[in-house]
Amino acid sequence: MLPLVAYVRRTDWPPHLELIERLRTALPDVELAVLADIAPQRLAEVRVAIVDGPTAEQLATMPALQLAHSTWAGVETVLPIVPAGVAVARMVDPQLADTMAEAVLAWTLYLHRDMPRYASQQRAATWVPRPLVRTSDRRVGIVGLGMLGTRAAERLVANGFTVAGWSRSPKAVSGVECFHGDDGLVALLERSDIIVDLLPQTSDTIGLLDGDAFTAMPAGASLINFGRGATVDDDALLAALDRRHLDHAVLDVFIVEPLPPEHRYWAHPHVTVLPHISGPTSPDTAAVIAAANVRRFLADGTLPADAIVDPSRGY
Amino acid sequence: MLPLVAYVRRTDWPPHLELIERLRTALPDVELAVLADIAPQRLAEVRVAIVDGPTAEQLATMPALQLAHSTWAGVETVLPIVPAGVAVARMVDPQLADTMAEAVLAWTLYLHRDMPRYASQQRAATWVPRPLVRTSDRRVGIVGLGMLGTRAAERLVANGFTVAGWSRSPKAVSGVECFHGDDGLVALLERSDIIVDLLPQTSDTIGLLDGDAFTAMPAGASLINFGRGATVDDDALLAALDRRHLDHAVLDVFIVEPLPPEHRYWAHPHVTVLPHISGPTSPDTAAVIAAANVRRFLADGTLPADAIVDPSRGY
Repeated sequence: MLPLVAYVRRTDWPPHLELIERLRTALPDVELAVLADIAPQRLAEVRVAIVDGPTAEQLATMPALQLAHSTWAGVETVLPIVPAGVAVARMVDPQLADTMAEAVLAWTLYLHRDMPRYASQQRAATWVPRPLVRTSDRRVGIVGLGMLGTRAAERLVANGFTVAGWSRSPKAVSGVECFHGDDGLVALLERSDIIVDLLPQTSDTIGLLDGDAFTAMPAGASLINFGRGATVDDDALLAALDRRHLDHAVLDVFIVEPLPPEHRYWAHPHVTVLPHISGPTSPDTAAVIAAANVRRFLADGTLPADAIVDPSRGY
Repeated sequence: MLPLVAYVRRTDWPPHLELIERLRTALPDVELAVLADIAPQRLAEVRVAIVDGPTAEQLATMPALQLAHSTWAGVETVLPIVPAGVAVARMVDPQLADTMAEAVLAWTLYLHRDMPRYASQQRAATWVPRPLVRTSDRRVGIVGLGMLGTRAAERLVANGFTVAGWSRSPKAVSGVECFHGDDGLVALLERSDIIVDLLPQTSDTIGLLDGDAFTAMPAGASLINFGRGATVDDDALLAALDRRHLDHAVLDVFIVEPLPPEHRYWAHPHVTVLPHISGPTSPDTAAVIAAANVRRFLADGTLPADAIVDPSRGY
């Protein structure tokens, strides 16, 4: 009999049919079933769940669960709801890192080449060329130098930007000035024209970019948040934009998603709101990676080191 | 006595003070004077003019003029007004090619990552993620493979796009499928999701991108015009956008600049209007290049082959 693996996603979201199909193709040696389709008497067979936005109630229905393997890179919504003793794995997908690096490049160029200002000038039918800044004179700071941050930094360097980065513990990335620790964060903020937030959400990162952080940034600097909404203090960001200390914010992630229609960000003239599209799960590559990890875990109970989530660290 | 060289710019435009200063620094061995500052009895001394948007009247005041060296890459406004027998040189600046390649990458990513659509969704406070297209599945077609087009194509290839190009005569660019001739243009248009126009304005290119060209492009394709406004048939472009055959146009160049406030482009929901900022003259590098050419011409009457403008070709 093939091992039974559950695919778990909250039922008020549309099922990710392409991902399920790709997972089935990549896992011919397991019986992959959507949780709602598993007969109650068989739930005790499930040792592994592939989770794609699960609820606590769904996870609690599988008494023998040993592993919840997320299809996402960020697991801050899974960690607090996983039953005691259940390991959590996260998606580490080079394709996702490429897509995210491309998004970082795209919206860095968006700010670098003054696209928000030209859009506002177009609405007023005004023709005002702005002085050009060379990429080598544009200092970009990446906050969070994991796999995503490292790839993004490398892509920006390849396109001529002057790039620095920050991580909690020391890192080294070729061509990138690396800062770490609390003092390092202030040093990075002070020398950056564009800050790119690629932080995971953990107890250490919630509200890390607060009023003091924005004040440390140079006047006229901008923020891109492609990490997690909770890493930014929204009120402090709005205040920094409103007093024109910060020029613009590009936000793809929010504490509540979808961003509620009444939120101030939507209509703010100096905020670009994106619907969490910077680094979407790529069904074909994610399915292959999750399948390999699930197969290995079922065989010997181990996982690749970079996929194992340390609950105390949060990623 | 130092040779007298005139700096010529129409008087209803503000003088480009930084460029003049850089030219003076780069030409310590000539007397560089703004045309209006040259005493009438000395105008006959001027053999070389550095032109930065001149008028026919200004050019006609220098009876001994032999060379009008433009500070611009495009000389379509200089060629028709230069007195008979006066050679025209154009600016061939690798820094300009880099800046233009960056602009092509920036606005290609703007279209590739759906920025116009997300901007319109933000105005309606609607949250709709769009499916991601990989860069390798995005076919970009560069129309015009001179120095600017070649560098732009190379930059797009380095960032993962599938790139083809077209030029009047056969060219070869590494990693880029190259088309040429009239049939080649149709073939390029038919296989391109994003067309980037980098054409000079010549008698051959005026209106080259017309209604037939837009119809040849795939449904949902987009246009970037960073070449010259007259290479596009504006009415045909507006018609193609209005019937939604083309998705979006990013326009930086226009037949009349600044674009008149009443022009339909300004308020069109599927047009991005830019104030001719894709490839601005870089004063420091342009001054050094113009200075070297002027010095050489004064010494032996020759110019680098790529700077010499062939009036019959138009560039």
